[in-house]
Amino acid sequence: MAASDETSAEERLIARYFRPLATAPGAFGLTDDAAIVTPPPGCDLVLTTDGVIAGVHFFPDDPPDDVARKVLRMNLSDLAAKGAAPLGFLLSVALPATVDEAWIAGFAAGLGADAALYGCPLLGGDTDRTPGPISVSVTAFGAVPHGAMVRRATAKPGDCVAVTGTIGDAALGLMLRRDAGRAALWGLTDAMSDHLKRRYALPQPRNALAEVVLHRAAAAMDVSDGLAGDLAKLCRASGVAAEVDVASVPLSAAARAAIAAEPALIETVLSGGDDYEILVTLAAENAEAFIEEARKAGTPATVIGAISEGQGARFLRDGEAMTFARPAYSHF
Amino acid sequence: MAASDETSAEERLIARYFRPLATAPGAFGLTDDAAIVTPPPGCDLVLTTDGVIAGVHFFPDDPPDDVARKVLRMNLSDLAAKGAAPLGFLLSVALPATVDEAWIAGFAAGLGADAALYGCPLLGGDTDRTPGPISVSVTAFGAVPHGAMVRRATAKPGDCVAVTGTIGDAALGLMLRRDAGRAALWGLTDAMSDHLKRRYALPQPRNALAEVVLHRAAAAMDVSDGLAGDLAKLCRASGVAAEVDVASVPLSAAARAAIAAEPALIETVLSGGDDYEILVTLAAENAEAFIEEARKAGTPATVIGAISEGQGARFLRDGEAMTFARPAYSHF
Repeated sequence: MAASDETSAEERLIARYFRPLATAPGAFGLTDDAAIVTPPPGCDLVLTTDGVIAGVHFFPDDPPDDVARKVLRMNLSDLAAKGAAPLGFLLSVALPATVDEAWIAGFAAGLGADAALYGCPLLGGDTDRTPGPISVSVTAFGAVPHGAMVRRATAKPGDCVAVTGTIGDAALGLMLRRDAGRAALWGLTDAMSDHLKRRYALPQPRNALAEVVLHRAAAAMDVSDGLAGDLAKLCRASGVAAEVDVASVPLSAAARAAIAAEPALIETVLSGGDDYEILVTLAAENAEAFIEEARKAGTPATVIGAISEGQGARFLRDGEAMTFARPAYSHF
Repeated sequence: MAASDETSAEERLIARYFRPLATAPGAFGLTDDAAIVTPPPGCDLVLTTDGVIAGVHFFPDDPPDDVARKVLRMNLSDLAAKGAAPLGFLLSVALPATVDEAWIAGFAAGLGADAALYGCPLLGGDTDRTPGPISVSVTAFGAVPHGAMVRRATAKPGDCVAVTGTIGDAALGLMLRRDAGRAALWGLTDAMSDHLKRRYALPQPRNALAEVVLHRAAAAMDVSDGLAGDLAKLCRASGVAAEVDVASVPLSAAARAAIAAEPALIETVLSGGDDYEILVTLAAENAEAFIEEARKAGTPATVIGAISEGQGARFLRDGEAMTFARPAYSHF
């Protein structure tokens, strides 16, 4: 992405909509082939990349500012779970010819709002036309003290397992987005229905907890592909087992109402994905402090289980281990 | 991109084909949400991102190893032009359901070959299914001494303008790829035709010259969207004018033969794109040393013009300024 004049439609669009977001000195106002980012002294640079495709990760008629904010927040959530402070991001967009300038303006407005909100400026990027659907990919950069990135692979037997916020809202919100009639079947109020749909449309990444994660967590990852599958991944990476008490998994009032009406939804809640909460394991001496510091930072965290020797993540309901038809989202 | 077991097709594919490419410690064997890269002490981290889409940037039936190598090399070329040494890359791939495992195996083989050749290991990434065409995006990282990244915006009146290698081969190669019958019209030998097509299919990024660029260039960028348009961008970014003697633009024997048969092709050569050569401006005291050091590093560089006060890039042929129907590739 590079523009220094209004000589092509591409350069004009970049200059008008994206250059105002490129506030970091290392972005060079999007007038160069490359950008620069320099982590603070003594810090490692944390890299993560995640993208969305229309019809796969969002609905083609979703508001463009929500699309922009969701893809940036998906990446911010990864940084938060690693204990990293955001430094900036690169953007790649491929747009079909049917996308008009109003869409681009809305997209850039949403992106700019969140870049400012999370202190994560645009550093550069790449724009292309595509014969396919709208595709947006973000690569986000963050900083952690050297060697301190919180890993997936460092959970230890005896750790407790905790999650931030509530689980399953987005998966239920997606069901409502596909079939609004479910809200009545589940006996949801309009506010409950809106809450679930909003949790799907716009994640609330827990960047306010990044420092708490950095100082307290033994292991962490963000919950993006479903709690059951993501905890199983953490266990595999760490070579440990986990046991979760399903009754202790934090649920919103809306999710509790839906499950009360249709008990099988508990599987959707635990395996559905798009939560963008943080899953952590905590050594015994850090558990209480983590919960307390998370609460002070504005996001409750809840202990849901424990790590032990062995393998696999077991979800216990009334003493029985649940089985999942599809424990986590897989793209293939 | 994260895999720690063979529990899903996605994880299995990543573990089998991509984990062997993730040789840097900061890639954590692709088992985490994020990767780490730490520039050497005293260095800035240079970031660049560029991608390809089937049917736009490559032919859907192109060999998958060529597709992988081309997209990585496009990014390596940006690093070379900035004077940066490669550190690693992130990969985002979106694949339609029609792509089989043989394609993925070929793609990963090509990627691995070039990751090794250029010392640029895979750090992480993201895989998705798409209802659209194959899309591959790379974000590459390089290191330069602090503050030393070679910019587009730093050309000065009095600098000379030089390019590496030869210009226009890829644009002619693309024409041959679309219509093989042109080779006979242009009177090309089979070797000439193959040369041009190969220059389109597989760029030869000039990373061997990165240090020479770093130490000698006043300004630089890679030539990816056509020499005429890219030089115009460099002039706009620097607030200067450039004058190029078309007769001095370095051409391969194949390009010379094609132009001899069809003189109008000179416009294609100068504006066609996909060259992945380096365009530099050089202060008078550095020009001779740059040419000599480039030659020693294995890639000739040629002085083609000069920078002056004013604006615009003029290409002079027999004393007359050329006009271009389309001076550079624009995606919109």
